[in-house]
Amino acid sequence: MKTYLDCFPCFLDQALRAARIATSDEKKVKEVLDEVGMMLKDIPLESSPPESGRLVYRKVSEITGNKDPYKEIKNQSTEKTLSLYPFLKDQVQKSHDPLITAIRVAIAGNVIDFGPGSSFDIEKDTAITLKKDFVICDYDKFKDCLNKTDEILYLGDNAGECVFDKILIEVMNKPTLYVVRNTPVINDATHEDAVNAGIDKVARIFSSGTDAPGTVLETCSPEFKDIYKNSKFIISKGQGNYEALSDEKCPIFFLLKIKCHVIANDIGVEKGDIILKGINV
Amino acid sequence: MKTYLDCFPCFLDQALRAARIATSDEKKVKEVLDEVGMMLKDIPLESSPPESGRLVYRKVSEITGNKDPYKEIKNQSTEKTLSLYPFLKDQVQKSHDPLITAIRVAIAGNVIDFGPGSSFDIEKDTAITLKKDFVICDYDKFKDCLNKTDEILYLGDNAGECVFDKILIEVMNKPTLYVVRNTPVINDATHEDAVNAGIDKVARIFSSGTDAPGTVLETCSPEFKDIYKNSKFIISKGQGNYEALSDEKCPIFFLLKIKCHVIANDIGVEKGDIILKGINV
Repeated sequence: MKTYLDCFPCFLDQALRAARIATSDEKKVKEVLDEVGMMLKDIPLESSPPESGRLVYRKVSEITGNKDPYKEIKNQSTEKTLSLYPFLKDQVQKSHDPLITAIRVAIAGNVIDFGPGSSFDIEKDTAITLKKDFVICDYDKFKDCLNKTDEILYLGDNAGECVFDKILIEVMNKPTLYVVRNTPVINDATHEDAVNAGIDKVARIFSSGTDAPGTVLETCSPEFKDIYKNSKFIISKGQGNYEALSDEKCPIFFLLKIKCHVIANDIGVEKGDIILKGINV
Repeated sequence: MKTYLDCFPCFLDQALRAARIATSDEKKVKEVLDEVGMMLKDIPLESSPPESGRLVYRKVSEITGNKDPYKEIKNQSTEKTLSLYPFLKDQVQKSHDPLITAIRVAIAGNVIDFGPGSSFDIEKDTAITLKKDFVICDYDKFKDCLNKTDEILYLGDNAGECVFDKILIEVMNKPTLYVVRNTPVINDATHEDAVNAGIDKVARIFSSGTDAPGTVLETCSPEFKDIYKNSKFIISKGQGNYEALSDEKCPIFFLLKIKCHVIANDIGVEKGDIILKGINV
């Protein structure tokens, strides 16, 4: 997905929130805004939002000296979702169709996002998502591809959300490579966050090599790109990964909750909607 | 009121919305964002938000070549509020206390704002405001000052809103100088907008001399500043005027609806609240 003009105020808003989490020194926060303001003119509309987001969050770390401002928030998210795991796992197992319920659970976890928009209530939002209609639901294709594949490439998104992804991975029950960001960016899941969520018990954790808040291929490692190109079944979680990969040629199923009106317009849905959308499948 | 760091993303957001109203040329809109982004570093936190807003909206006009992007929107607002005038005037006349009801009506008109935040439904919001409790209500002082004064300096805010101001001016029934912006900025009322609302039938219309979206004294004419300094009873409508004058030494009654969380925090109230707040009275 390209960068829309609406993304520009959002970049500044994200910089402000991240900087405030990274430091209590308002002068440094102001410096972040000044610098990000000056960066805007160099952001090409052809790039995807996480490509630019990467530069914005790098600037926040550089100026505040805090390489992982969301560390504590990420740990809290994981703790919270781990406490919900037994109940949700039980819901999935009891349900008429465990696979679609697990997909819903995995999407519900996607509300844990400190990027664009930051207000959520994980328990309430999960309950809503479990009952919400999909506006795009390529479930038959998903099942078909899942049945045919020997392995799954699962692109994770946020810390905490990993716990809910684990439930889906357990239900799919096939060899899975769970992909995380290489270095901390916003509250996106790194190797450590995936381990804290117990993903290592059900999948192999692999770094994409990127420090962008999305799987921006140009910033990924050659090893990851090789795996990606040869994958027959890719699950992509969240907005950042959607923005980075929506124009790709690989077979991808996007599982996400729409939290931003720009992405909503790009896909042709509404903010708040949930989707299971397959491309090249 | 000083500029808060939260105002910076809002400046960019306002620039985007104003530029899109001013032109359909997305390249020019991008140029506006680029330029406003670069301006941010020069905005001192000690200045009030409308001081910087003035520079932002000037940049929009300069780049898009549109000196009055909100002209049609302003005319529509005035038409809409004129259609509501007979009903609201009747409500005021029938009410137990016409003065406080007219103050409520004048505050209700303050929802017509295309600056920070831009979504409103004038009829619905008016109905809500007429029943809403004031969180700050210096009404006794207001009545007392009104009884003692020979003339009223009334600082208008937005086009359309003037029609509701007219009802309050009629109820107060004292010689009134109604102050407008000198040149168009956002949907703020100019001389023409005040005349379209019929203000000239109940008050003398006077330009503050400013092109800022608020009565920023340093940008006002010497004539206006003289009048202002010698006024014993000043009514100030809306957020822009509050931001510009909240630290002043003159006796001012601020009538406004809180539409932004930054102003809400500054005053110590909540977004959506209505206030009648006197200073130096």
